[in-house]
Amino acid sequence: MYAVIMAGGSGTRFWPMSREKMPKQLLKIGGEDTLIQQTVDRVLPLIDRKSVFIVTNQGIAGDIERQLAERFGGSWAQNFIREPQAKNTAPALGLSAVHLNRIDPEGIMIVLSADHAIKNPGAFLSCLSAAAGAARQGYLVTLGIKPGRPETGYGYIKAGAACSEPGISGVFRVERFVEKPDRPTAEEYLRSGQYYWNSGMFVWKVSTFLEEVARHMPALNDGLREIQKAIGSGREADTIREVFSRLPSESVDYGIMEKTSRAAVVPADIGWSDVGSWTALEEVTEKDGQGNIITGNVINIGSTDSVIYADQRLVATIGLKDAVVVDTPDATLVCTKERAQDVKKVVDELKKRNAEEHVTHRTVYRPWGNYTVLEEGDRYKIKRIVVNPGAKLSHQLHHHRSEHWVVVTGTAWVTNGDREYDVHPNESTYIPISAKHRLENRGRIPLQIIEVQNGEYLGEDDIVRLDDDYNRHDQKKLSPLPELPK
Amino acid sequence: MYAVIMAGGSGTRFWPMSREKMPKQLLKIGGEDTLIQQTVDRVLPLIDRKSVFIVTNQGIAGDIERQLAERFGGSWAQNFIREPQAKNTAPALGLSAVHLNRIDPEGIMIVLSADHAIKNPGAFLSCLSAAAGAARQGYLVTLGIKPGRPETGYGYIKAGAACSEPGISGVFRVERFVEKPDRPTAEEYLRSGQYYWNSGMFVWKVSTFLEEVARHMPALNDGLREIQKAIGSGREADTIREVFSRLPSESVDYGIMEKTSRAAVVPADIGWSDVGSWTALEEVTEKDGQGNIITGNVINIGSTDSVIYADQRLVATIGLKDAVVVDTPDATLVCTKERAQDVKKVVDELKKRNAEEHVTHRTVYRPWGNYTVLEEGDRYKIKRIVVNPGAKLSHQLHHHRSEHWVVVTGTAWVTNGDREYDVHPNESTYIPISAKHRLENRGRIPLQIIEVQNGEYLGEDDIVRLDDDYNRHDQKKLSPLPELPK
Repeated sequence: MYAVIMAGGSGTRFWPMSREKMPKQLLKIGGEDTLIQQTVDRVLPLIDRKSVFIVTNQGIAGDIERQLAERFGGSWAQNFIREPQAKNTAPALGLSAVHLNRIDPEGIMIVLSADHAIKNPGAFLSCLSAAAGAARQGYLVTLGIKPGRPETGYGYIKAGAACSEPGISGVFRVERFVEKPDRPTAEEYLRSGQYYWNSGMFVWKVSTFLEEVARHMPALNDGLREIQKAIGSGREADTIREVFSRLPSESVDYGIMEKTSRAAVVPADIGWSDVGSWTALEEVTEKDGQGNIITGNVINIGSTDSVIYADQRLVATIGLKDAVVVDTPDATLVCTKERAQDVKKVVDELKKRNAEEHVTHRTVYRPWGNYTVLEEGDRYKIKRIVVNPGAKLSHQLHHHRSEHWVVVTGTAWVTNGDREYDVHPNESTYIPISAKHRLENRGRIPLQIIEVQNGEYLGEDDIVRLDDDYNRHDQKKLSPLPELPK
Repeated sequence: MYAVIMAGGSGTRFWPMSREKMPKQLLKIGGEDTLIQQTVDRVLPLIDRKSVFIVTNQGIAGDIERQLAERFGGSWAQNFIREPQAKNTAPALGLSAVHLNRIDPEGIMIVLSADHAIKNPGAFLSCLSAAAGAARQGYLVTLGIKPGRPETGYGYIKAGAACSEPGISGVFRVERFVEKPDRPTAEEYLRSGQYYWNSGMFVWKVSTFLEEVARHMPALNDGLREIQKAIGSGREADTIREVFSRLPSESVDYGIMEKTSRAAVVPADIGWSDVGSWTALEEVTEKDGQGNIITGNVINIGSTDSVIYADQRLVATIGLKDAVVVDTPDATLVCTKERAQDVKKVVDELKKRNAEEHVTHRTVYRPWGNYTVLEEGDRYKIKRIVVNPGAKLSHQLHHHRSEHWVVVTGTAWVTNGDREYDVHPNESTYIPISAKHRLENRGRIPLQIIEVQNGEYLGEDDIVRLDDDYNRHDQKKLSPLPELPK
C-alpha cells in the first residue's frame, strides 16, 4: 500500500496566517503538529514511511521536507514527487501512478490531501482498510463523509447498492456525483441518509487507475506514456516539464470519477474537516464556555462565538460576536464569520498592489534556520538571523549592501574575504560590500545574530551564491523522480 | 487675559493609541496637530503666548513643551504650572489663580481643557469674548454647549434669566447644575432648549475666583494662602508639594460652581467634542461614503459605520458594522462601538498584569529625539534611536549592559570612556559595560542609529546620568513657578 499526499494547495483562505510561501498544510491547525505532519502521522500505522509520497511543487517541497524531518526524524528527500507546474489533481495523480507503476502495478494507492483535519484517526484507518478491500476488486473508491449539516459548499456523492463481491463490506457503488447543492437540496440530502460529502480522498489499484485514465482521459494517457518512457533516462525531468506544460488542468473527479463505472464509496464518520476557512476552525478546535476559540496574548472582555488569534503582540477584544480576529507580525485581519470566505478578496487586492503581505511572513524559514525582518527603512534593513547547530548559509556576496553582524547567542564562524574567524556573543563583525562571505554555526546551540544591512538596494535577490549546502544555485532545475523502495 | 489649560488627564479611553505616558492631549485627533497644539492655537488670536499657561504634572510637561516648541517655535519652558500631584480641578485652578494673582488680580482667567476638539474656532472666540464681558462684572462664567443629541454621559446646566448688566450680551444666569440624566430626561432637556452640556471651560476674574474659594472651600483657601506666602522664597516648591499632599481631591464644579450665586453660562454652538472615546471620533473627523473613518494602511471590504486605524502594519477588514479597530505597533484593539467605553477595563487588566502596553508605546519621545524598541529577547534588546540635529543624550553609564551602535544616517559624535570620535553611516562602535559614554548629533540632519544591547538586565532604569542637558539627574525635583510676564 502506498500513500500519495497532495500538497500543492495555496490556502489563501487562511490569510494572514497562511501565505503564498507558507500555505495551510504547513500551519499548526487543530493540534501541536502542522496539517502535513498530522496527515503523514495518520497513515504511518498502515503504510511504511518509504511508501508515503508527497506530490507538490518545487517551491514548497523544501519546507515540507524540513517539517517531516523535524517531526519524524531522518531524511524525507526521497519521498517527493514534484509537479513542474500546478495542473489540478488528474495530472498530479497520473504522474504519481506512473511512478508507482514502475515497481508495483497491483499496489494500492491511497490519495490524501495534505491540509485536511481528521478527529478520529482510528475510524479513518478502518475506512481505508475497507476501501482497500474494494480497490483490490477493481473499484475506484472514494471516502464519502457522513454530512453533519446541510453544507452547500461541497459536492455530494449518492450511494447505491452495496458492493457484493466477497471480502468487501461497508462499501457501496456510487449512484452519482452531484454538484454543490442549494440549501433546500442540501437539507433533503442530509435527511435522506444516502448522500455523502465528496472529500477528495481516494483508494484504488495503480493499474485500475491507469486503465481508467486510458479510457476517459486520452490526452493525459498519452502524456503519461511519454513520461513513462523517459523515466530513468537523462530526459526524465525535461520530459515531465514539457508534458505538463501542454496538459490541460483537470480534476480527477471530473476527468475520471464522474465517468467511470467502477466508482464506489466508503461512508466515513471520521470527524473530517477540510479546514476551508477561519470559521472551520470550530470543527477542529475546542471552544471555550462562551463559544470562542482564543489563542495567544489576548485580553477578551465579553466577546462570544468568535475566533481570536494573537501571534506575538497583544490583542484586546470587547463585545464581539461571530467575529474573526487574526493578528500576525505584519498584518491583521478582522472580519465577520459570515464573510470569512472573502479573505480571498483581500489576497487578490494585495496581489494587485504587489504587496509582500500575501507572499511571505516576517519570519522566513530556510534550510539552515530562519530570519525575521525586524525593520526596513531608507537604506537600511534589520534582521534577526537564527542558524541551526551544524548549519551554514551559502558562500555568497552582495553587490549593493554591506552587513554588520552582532552575535547575541552562540558562536559564529565567519568567512569574510580571505579571513576566517570566530565571533562570540556581544562581539560584532563587518562584511563590506562585494566581499565574499559565509556564516556558519559549528556549535551545539542555535546561533542568533542581529544583522544591520546598509545599502542603496536591499532586496533578497541581491545575492550571488558561490557555494551552497542546499543546492540553491539554480532554483529552476527540476529534481528527477525519487528512488523507489525495492 | 490669561489662558489656563488643564493638561493632566490620562485618557485611557483612547488606548491603545493613548498610553499612560502618551495621553490623549498629545495625540493627533481630528487634525494634523495634536489636541494640546490645537488648544493653544485656538486661543492665540486672543491671548499673548506669554499669557498661556499649562497646568500639568511633571511627567508629561516635557512632552507638551516639546510639542508646543515644534508647532509654535521658541521655548515654552516658562508657560508651565506644575501640580506636584493630581488633586482634581479645584486645587489645580487654585494654584493657577494664586500664580496669576501675583501680577494681575483683576486679570481674566480662561480655563480650558487640553484634550477637547472644537470645530468652529471663530464662534469659540466670540463666546470667550462674551464670557469675558460677564466675568469683568464679577460672574463665574461657564461655556454651555448646545446639545446636539440626548447625551446621558454629561452633566447639564439649566440657563435662567439673561444677565442684564451693561456691556453683557448673550450670557445667562445659571439656574442650576444637574447630574448626568437618564435617557428620557436627556430627551426632555434637548427639547426644552434651556439646558446645556457642562463643558468644563470657565471664564472668571482671578479675584472673583479666589473670593469664591475663600467662601466655599476653606481648606483649599488656607492652602493657597500658605503657597502665596512661600512664592519666591526658597520654600516655594516644598510648600506647594506639602500643601497639595494634604488637600482633598475636588472638582471646581462641585466645590465652587454648584454653590456660588455668581454662576453664569454662555450658550456655545462651536462644534465642541470632548473626544471621550473612539466613537467620538465621528464628531471631529469626516466619514467616508460608507460611514467609516479609515486611517493608514487598510484594505476594507464592505465594512460600514466603523472606525479603522492602522498605524504601521497592514489591517484588513471585511463586513464589519459599527466596529472599532485600532492597530498600533505593540497592541491591537477590536471592539463594538457600543462597548467602546469598556476599553478602560482592558487598561485595568493590563495594570493588574503589570504589562507595558498601557504605559508606553514602542516609540518613546525624549527631549533629544526618540527611540523605538524593535525587539526584546533573552539577554538582548534592539532599538532604533533618532537624535535630533544639535541634540545629545546624557553622559551616562550602564551597570548591566554593553551596546553596539551602527549608524544608519547622519554622523554620530561619540564619547566612549576617554576617547571622542565620529562614527559615520555604515560604521559601528562598541560601548563596553560600565563605560561612561555619550551620543551626540553635531550635524544638520537627524542621526539614526541601530543599537543592539547585550546584558543580563536591560531595563530602562539601568542608567547613571553623569551630565545631562535636560536636567534629568533628579526627576523628583519640582520646578519653581515660572517667571511671570511683567
